[in-house]
Amino acid sequence: MHLTAGPSGGWRYDAREGGWFERGPAAERDKLMATTAANRQLITALEDEATRLRILSIRATSEAGSGHPTSCASAAEIVSTLFFSVMRYDPANPGDPANDVFILSKGHAAPLLYAAWADAGFLTEGRLLTLRRIDSDLEGHPTPRLPFVDVATGSLGQGLPAGIGMALCARYLDHSDQRIYVLLGDGESAEGSVWEAAAIGSHYKLSNLCATIDVNRLGQSGPTMLEHQMDVYEARWRAFGWQALAVDGHSVPALLEAYEKAARVTDRPTVVLARTIKGKGIPFAEDRNGWHGKALKKGEEENSAIHALESQLHDGRPGPWTPRKPPRRAPSRPEVGPPSTRPPYSIGDMVATREAFGAALAALGEGNPLLVALDGDVKNSTFSEDFQKRFPDRFFEDFIAEQNMIGAAMGLAARGKIPFASTFACFLTRAYDFIRMAAISSSNIKLVGTHAGVSIGEDGPSQMGLEDLAMMCAEPNMTVLYPADGVSAWRAVENAAGIAGPVYIRAGRPKTPVIYGPDEKFAAGRCKILRRSGRDRVTIVAGGVTVYEALKAHDQLAREGIAVRVIDLYSVQPIDQEALQQSARETGGAVITVEDHYAHGGIGDAVLAALAEEPEVKLRKLAVREIPRSGKPDELIARFGISAGAIVEQVRQMAAK
Amino acid sequence: MHLTAGPSGGWRYDAREGGWFERGPAAERDKLMATTAANRQLITALEDEATRLRILSIRATSEAGSGHPTSCASAAEIVSTLFFSVMRYDPANPGDPANDVFILSKGHAAPLLYAAWADAGFLTEGRLLTLRRIDSDLEGHPTPRLPFVDVATGSLGQGLPAGIGMALCARYLDHSDQRIYVLLGDGESAEGSVWEAAAIGSHYKLSNLCATIDVNRLGQSGPTMLEHQMDVYEARWRAFGWQALAVDGHSVPALLEAYEKAARVTDRPTVVLARTIKGKGIPFAEDRNGWHGKALKKGEEENSAIHALESQLHDGRPGPWTPRKPPRRAPSRPEVGPPSTRPPYSIGDMVATREAFGAALAALGEGNPLLVALDGDVKNSTFSEDFQKRFPDRFFEDFIAEQNMIGAAMGLAARGKIPFASTFACFLTRAYDFIRMAAISSSNIKLVGTHAGVSIGEDGPSQMGLEDLAMMCAEPNMTVLYPADGVSAWRAVENAAGIAGPVYIRAGRPKTPVIYGPDEKFAAGRCKILRRSGRDRVTIVAGGVTVYEALKAHDQLAREGIAVRVIDLYSVQPIDQEALQQSARETGGAVITVEDHYAHGGIGDAVLAALAEEPEVKLRKLAVREIPRSGKPDELIARFGISAGAIVEQVRQMAAK
Repeated sequence: MHLTAGPSGGWRYDAREGGWFERGPAAERDKLMATTAANRQLITALEDEATRLRILSIRATSEAGSGHPTSCASAAEIVSTLFFSVMRYDPANPGDPANDVFILSKGHAAPLLYAAWADAGFLTEGRLLTLRRIDSDLEGHPTPRLPFVDVATGSLGQGLPAGIGMALCARYLDHSDQRIYVLLGDGESAEGSVWEAAAIGSHYKLSNLCATIDVNRLGQSGPTMLEHQMDVYEARWRAFGWQALAVDGHSVPALLEAYEKAARVTDRPTVVLARTIKGKGIPFAEDRNGWHGKALKKGEEENSAIHALESQLHDGRPGPWTPRKPPRRAPSRPEVGPPSTRPPYSIGDMVATREAFGAALAALGEGNPLLVALDGDVKNSTFSEDFQKRFPDRFFEDFIAEQNMIGAAMGLAARGKIPFASTFACFLTRAYDFIRMAAISSSNIKLVGTHAGVSIGEDGPSQMGLEDLAMMCAEPNMTVLYPADGVSAWRAVENAAGIAGPVYIRAGRPKTPVIYGPDEKFAAGRCKILRRSGRDRVTIVAGGVTVYEALKAHDQLAREGIAVRVIDLYSVQPIDQEALQQSARETGGAVITVEDHYAHGGIGDAVLAALAEEPEVKLRKLAVREIPRSGKPDELIARFGISAGAIVEQVRQMAAK
Repeated sequence: MHLTAGPSGGWRYDAREGGWFERGPAAERDKLMATTAANRQLITALEDEATRLRILSIRATSEAGSGHPTSCASAAEIVSTLFFSVMRYDPANPGDPANDVFILSKGHAAPLLYAAWADAGFLTEGRLLTLRRIDSDLEGHPTPRLPFVDVATGSLGQGLPAGIGMALCARYLDHSDQRIYVLLGDGESAEGSVWEAAAIGSHYKLSNLCATIDVNRLGQSGPTMLEHQMDVYEARWRAFGWQALAVDGHSVPALLEAYEKAARVTDRPTVVLARTIKGKGIPFAEDRNGWHGKALKKGEEENSAIHALESQLHDGRPGPWTPRKPPRRAPSRPEVGPPSTRPPYSIGDMVATREAFGAALAALGEGNPLLVALDGDVKNSTFSEDFQKRFPDRFFEDFIAEQNMIGAAMGLAARGKIPFASTFACFLTRAYDFIRMAAISSSNIKLVGTHAGVSIGEDGPSQMGLEDLAMMCAEPNMTVLYPADGVSAWRAVENAAGIAGPVYIRAGRPKTPVIYGPDEKFAAGRCKILRRSGRDRVTIVAGGVTVYEALKAHDQLAREGIAVRVIDLYSVQPIDQEALQQSARETGGAVITVEDHYAHGGIGDAVLAALAEEPEVKLRKLAVREIPRSGKPDELIARFGISAGAIVEQVRQMAAK
């Protein structure tokens, strides 16, 4: 058994006598300490580093007056071992894409992460004390404002799905030796998303992924479901196809050996199940309920804890540390020119926007190797299978696990890919918390929700996306595109690929006629005025399938001598405020919105907001105002008041006044 | 080994020689067939019934022209065995609360469920052929429009969490012998929510819960992750603490024995892992990819399938069937009078709305035994622990598994309880798909989201609920209450308990002064005008913490000689359109909304919609318009433009015009 300074720097543990560690932590440490001076030095250095991380976490949270020092304390040896012996990275360049990755899924232990980066030399100790201040990037939970944070965490159960995305990227796309380390809490293991990721991780044989669970037994409000039943944790993770290693999470030798074993396995991911004590090292808080999310009070409380910790130091400040160099094979970054595709549609062709999405994605994939796609077992309905067929190596079937799908997309985006994740619009609600966190991360993910609205027909309300615009537009940095025909859907995919940040494309199920020529240009923030005259008495704003209802209403009203303007709201967010204001003014303030979406939070509200400061606007919002049901698409459009007939009726009323 | 007609009717299987079934389906059947005439009769009757269910499912979907006959075919023996031998229920009274419960989590197999209820005598065969029509309650996926459906399904992975709620109810609240059967697909096992439920199910030792997984190997767009790896399924469910029984899902004897074993175990739930063939019995579709969600074409395709199935019948129509009577101990239904609690607060007391929620729930629980509560390991932050302390038997800790929490709440509501499920507002996004389905079910659930908005402070954006109003108000039948002080929060809990259907209460983190007297009345659909004069120049509409900002702005502006009206929008949905319209008119159309929520889908949009048809309204919406960050509450309220100062500035601009 050897601990050696590896050729690329840093301390490495060479476990030629693997397996002995199960005898218990004291025996492990004694045995290792008895070997060489280098081993003794490594162990005491990592132990001291863990103690330092505890002290810094306490100092920062006490200074801030809030935070989670006891959740930091339980994971201190894990982080010390990973950051100062196991991981290969350039501490001066945390954003180097060749670095091994560390994701703090238990985001409330943020001070521990910040302390590690301080001791790695990237942050000053003084900066640690700005924790949680409005002028500091050291937020209460980590966000990518910091260069060493890839995805925002703090909503539990999201780190492992993001890690799946990064591990897929390294293994299958970048073919890099990069390793992905994710630190989870035990409480968050109850989140289903963790098990979605567990299943997918073994399915894709992600041996470059290593999770660690800080099993400290205590949640926020009481003991966790499994407390310290390490055998149950082991059985679950093994059953999900992982190498599961239960260790004493405060034993540096045990952790070193576990990470060494993790690096050696080639056909599955590894989870290190670290049995720990919450509040470890803080005498009055160790393993006690009621200490979650409480900073130690400045003065006696803080001082006594720090005094106790300092007394545990072997050598005071650890000696100089040589970082291990990142793996050589860094991912390549291809040059990508502007897209030069052209929608293969002519006016009048019958094309569903979901079909155009799939076709466009496949076409764009040709010129842009960064494009990748994920789907949740509906690729034959969303048409993402077009991309899969052309680029099977850049397509990841995520099965029916939408949270992991979005999390993995975030991970892929963090590694520079442009992931398109598609499913039915309604099932994106499954992953709203992930979408919310992707927005906080400004993640470059592209979401495509098909089967929007009642116009899907007979499958009924469970399959109808009727709240997706409300959900997506609420995120302030989300671009929301809602193409009505094949050409605009094609351009929406192009637009989305080119926009930095999260984008949502809303697509429909039914085939509709192509209304734009193949060279028509579309842009986020711009709408299309489809019908216009000098005599327009009402502006009708529609999107997707209701554009066709509006056009039908236009023609019928024209026969009655009533001219109306018709706007295709291609971009719901940002919205073309100027065009809408001008049209509203030109039609005497009379505006009708019509949408295949619930009444709150959709097109109607977006238009109302755009016109909020316009004097004399009267707006009628046609939308789905009750829970719908099964039926034929046309029947449902009529029944829920968003048909050409409903528009005509409203226009007549408005025009009569 | 015996199959006997049980004392309460129906056929029962008494497996005194349990275990033999593992020898394989042929051996099982042969052995059982060799026993008694009664056994032979039961087996062939259930086999024929399965064949009939297949035929009816094909007829209904072919008539509808869409649907999922192959997903029905794989589960036909499971449903035949459950409905015609295992389950105890009154087929003439599907809503009898004493009945055993069947939840079709794989909702796309709806025709199979409808066929079973037809053969049980509740539906006519003719009605089956109205499947998916707009005038029929036999929708594409089941909804509670039908008396035998407790919760809408069709978004996969939701049936088991609902079953958890029903099993908790039967075991811990109603102390009934009722058993809960849930049929899942294998594809949906990838959903994390299934594993949330699995963990909770064994934690609460729900031996009255029996899941069956129809492992038919094929998803919608290709093979499932595990295909027919029954050993992996078994290992996972066993590791999650369930009795896991892998059987041939087309073997009636094997299923009978499995359900018998399920009924005998007392300390854990059971999962029957039924290995099946998708499209079983339809020669050209059996075990073939590409047949998901496709009705057989009327004519040759349909006829040939039905011909093949009919040739498998032993006896044609099965003989008369005696339903097994429901268990005797039906849940009691207590009489509940109107609430007679009084908020224990005086004007000026400092109370957080989340605190008042917890206190009110505990107080209301005294007079209303139907009230139950669930929380996701934040009960000490949401204050639902007040209820837990008073009524530990009616509180269910759901740990950090929000999807299961909402699903379980739906299950409890379906059994007549009034469940309050609480967590941070932001974490309800985790369960949006469940909330959406609860709305489709018109489920009587009460959701409480605390820690709304940037006013939570230092924890940062991951913990801030900023899209909850968008999400909740989008559901057209969701009542959304947003109390500003302790008294109104208390009344919101009372209101919520009394409203039939889903209700959301938005609560805040900070303590704020009580502004209403303890006898003030509040109602959904009504707002409160807090400041009013004949000279008001602007109407300010606020909610929660921004009510205080509006009041501060009012006072400051009063000193400048500018009178403004201040409205506390206690009820966001339904909204008090009349009061808002009147105020807007009385202030010359000048309206400002101010909210601790993102700009889209919140209070501002709700008010805009309420005033959409008012001429001459000019509305300015103050809301959080970018991703926020950590900081002190007051700093964040100021920085994101929703402070008294921001309101004053807007009023000055509007008043200057």
